[in-house]
Amino acid sequence: GGATRIERDTMGELAVPAEAYYGVQTARAIENFPISPLRMPRSVIRAMGLIKRAAASVNQSLGLLEKRQADAIKQAATEVVEGTLDGEFPVDIFQTGSGTSTNMNTNEVISNRATELLGGARGSKLVHPNDHVNLGQSSNDVIPTAIHIAASETIQRQLIPSLTRLQKALAKKAREFDKIVKIGRTHLQDATPVRLGQEFGGYARQIELGIARMRRAQEALSEVALGGTAVGTGLNCHPQFARKVMAIISKETGCPFKEAANHFEAQSAQDSLVEASGELRTLAVSLTKIANDIRWLGSGPRCGLGEINLPETQPGSSIMPGKVNPVIAESVTMVCAQVIGNDVTVTVGGQAANFELIVMLPVMAYNLLQSIELLAAASNNFAAKCIEGIKANEERCKSLIEESLAMCTALAPEIGYEAAAKLAKEAYKSGKTVRQVAREQKVLPEKRLAELLDPWRMTEPGGPVGSAGG
Amino acid sequence: GGATRIERDTMGELAVPAEAYYGVQTARAIENFPISPLRMPRSVIRAMGLIKRAAASVNQSLGLLEKRQADAIKQAATEVVEGTLDGEFPVDIFQTGSGTSTNMNTNEVISNRATELLGGARGSKLVHPNDHVNLGQSSNDVIPTAIHIAASETIQRQLIPSLTRLQKALAKKAREFDKIVKIGRTHLQDATPVRLGQEFGGYARQIELGIARMRRAQEALSEVALGGTAVGTGLNCHPQFARKVMAIISKETGCPFKEAANHFEAQSAQDSLVEASGELRTLAVSLTKIANDIRWLGSGPRCGLGEINLPETQPGSSIMPGKVNPVIAESVTMVCAQVIGNDVTVTVGGQAANFELIVMLPVMAYNLLQSIELLAAASNNFAAKCIEGIKANEERCKSLIEESLAMCTALAPEIGYEAAAKLAKEAYKSGKTVRQVAREQKVLPEKRLAELLDPWRMTEPGGPVGSAGG
Ligand SMILES: O=C(O)/C=C/C(=O)O
Ligand SMILES: O=C(O)/C=C/C(=O)O
Repeated sequence: GGATRIERDTMGELAVPAEAYYGVQTARAIENFPISPLRMPRSVIRAMGLIKRAAASVNQSLGLLEKRQADAIKQAATEVVEGTLDGEFPVDIFQTGSGTSTNMNTNEVISNRATELLGGARGSKLVHPNDHVNLGQSSNDVIPTAIHIAASETIQRQLIPSLTRLQKALAKKAREFDKIVKIGRTHLQDATPVRLGQEFGGYARQIELGIARMRRAQEALSEVALGGTAVGTGLNCHPQFARKVMAIISKETGCPFKEAANHFEAQSAQDSLVEASGELRTLAVSLTKIANDIRWLGSGPRCGLGEINLPETQPGSSIMPGKVNPVIAESVTMVCAQVIGNDVTVTVGGQAANFELIVMLPVMAYNLLQSIELLAAASNNFAAKCIEGIKANEERCKSLIEESLAMCTALAPEIGYEAAAKLAKEAYKSGKTVRQVAREQKVLPEKRLAELLDPWRMTEPGGPVGSAGG
Repeated sequence: GGATRIERDTMGELAVPAEAYYGVQTARAIENFPISPLRMPRSVIRAMGLIKRAAASVNQSLGLLEKRQADAIKQAATEVVEGTLDGEFPVDIFQTGSGTSTNMNTNEVISNRATELLGGARGSKLVHPNDHVNLGQSSNDVIPTAIHIAASETIQRQLIPSLTRLQKALAKKAREFDKIVKIGRTHLQDATPVRLGQEFGGYARQIELGIARMRRAQEALSEVALGGTAVGTGLNCHPQFARKVMAIISKETGCPFKEAANHFEAQSAQDSLVEASGELRTLAVSLTKIANDIRWLGSGPRCGLGEINLPETQPGSSIMPGKVNPVIAESVTMVCAQVIGNDVTVTVGGQAANFELIVMLPVMAYNLLQSIELLAAASNNFAAKCIEGIKANEERCKSLIEESLAMCTALAPEIGYEAAAKLAKEAYKSGKTVRQVAREQKVLPEKRLAELLDPWRMTEPGGPVGSAGG
């Protein structure tokens, strides 16, 4: 229901809601793609606004657009940037592979809002969606550029700060747990001792490397397609346009962008998005490792490894009273599963590069941005509700290690591998500790035995090693 | 802001919005999982309502629940089934891996609504979320059961009808195009002739097999975990409970469900969801093949293969006036990329099966249901806006085939592979057709040549073959 206005495009007339800023091509896209509730992320719409605003400035400065029109476009584009027109972007991500429907949606919204600002009626195209708002542009260069901007900005503003918090939390625990010696585990079997702080130091370093990977993802996203227009040749675009536009946007976002070295590479394919997604997936693998280790280290409370205690956040079970579960870590691992799946979607999308255009841009955008946002929220929540509140179970760590057979490893260099293995077998059979059996059998003088069987010494055989995670 | 009430659970007190039907555990989950905008699909919430309603009936019939309470639960659960309480399910999918937060959310909403129906105040637990609504259940059996119900019902109600329409549309085109002979293509290189109807008949058969695959997915989903409670042993559950509940739900949904043959298999892992997702991914591969073939067959309009014309749905380009693109097919291929990625997420989730419980149920549910819904919407849209309106370009098909060198293949059985190859090479060099060169060189009598070089005959060498897609 509701009042409508009639708009036309090259295919004919269509009714558009009277109060909508979007126009006929958006209306066609709504009709053509009734597929899902998935919409272009806010960050991409924001980036579209940034591009259209900077484009109007640059086109004016190049003498291609009147000041009156440029000013109106800049005002309307600012509203798109700020999100006040978000309700005007109803197009499904499962649309045309170039994202033309989203580009035209943006052009129409800015055209109608700018027209209104100049006193014209919606649909009258005083500021034209193609001739003015899209001037010097094509969906084929604008949409991949917007995706690069959105992804890099979201990494910068959301993901890196969250990872930094997580890295700091892990490094702090590494220092806090630096005195706690525990059993090491390889193949899930008891191995030689490590300090709990060393384990957490390893996690902290994983996230430190994760932050570096995110900077590499930003680097991969820094070259943009803008300036190539329809097929990479830059037809209908001023040669200085892209450089000038991207200088403005780099300044506005604080992220590094530059015109692509080769426009055919930059818009006929999107290997850069595939690479960025690969970096995100790597981070998901790091987080999975950390979250799983922490779930297992905290397993119990009575019948598990129980070397650490996680902060309690909610009752765990609908049927088992008093049970508490590592729910925050589980939530992190589910985010990682999603990111790993999203990466496959981005990869399949990257393979849809046909001649001058890759035709899965919207689904690549959606999945990449979802991965960035999920990893940001999950990393922050992991730090805040789990890592920062972890307590070590020092007694448990100590008693497990004393009982472990792996202690015999430290004797091997002096009594030989075979003799040490025999000693471990004997301890295993008798239920005694390695220390007890070694003493009984007097394999070495008491003092030397105490030195070698000092678990702390085993965690730092060559003097202090990097364990506090920077 | 807004008024609140204080509720308590085993971990203490918490404020809950006064007007909310959900309770303290839901409130904790909202606080604990501020990760994403992704929520449990409507179909899963509906299935939760179906389970809680049938559970109340069965518990009453087994003498475990008073009629008054059972009636109130049934009424409240019906509202959950119908969706009028959807606003009461605010919990993120990135939560506890068992979905306990969603189960407790459901228990709380039904508890409070049922309490209200009996004249009690919200939070007073006249009908208790654990003791009454969750009676004989655990999240660990209810949540996987709800996922099975939701997936099977959505396959039945949305996906199979869409595929049926698509299959019919393709089969109709197969009949319509049965007379149109065209070049076959293998390795993207000209091969011997086929009829356009045969190609479409192949597509129709792919979708027919796709429907069979969806029935197999339903079969994979038919065994449910209900009755196993916390760890598969069925502690605190009446032995007849699950069988009776699933009989009711099978009748209500028209889908086949039965209690699992082995409850440890059914809830300590979810291979069934992984299998179902694999069937969906297979369908995505079928649809990708069809959508891509159709994009290429329709490529042009002047400089491509141009053997078919797709219906025009919207202007294709923001910069190239008059261009029209195969946007519906592109939208289908993007859906397929999403489904292929979702399948990986479900697979990673399936690997998170630890001892008595798999701990990635919510993310598996979300991705599986998204895949089903996307494939349903995309298949229907593909049929309606693309396949049903395809026209053959008969002249183009005919002229390409006459020019093709692959025609020589039909001569090989009579003149030998070597001689036929020489003939094709001569045609290639001279720019003549195979027919012209064969006549000039009189390799066979005119009449026999006409018989062998009849492209139609080449498409049906042994008499009629199944090409009309059933
Ligand atoms: O919510 C439940 O019923 C069980 C959860 C658990 O196994 O901890
Ligand atoms: O929307 C465009 O600018 C171009 C689309 C296309 O290449 O067809």
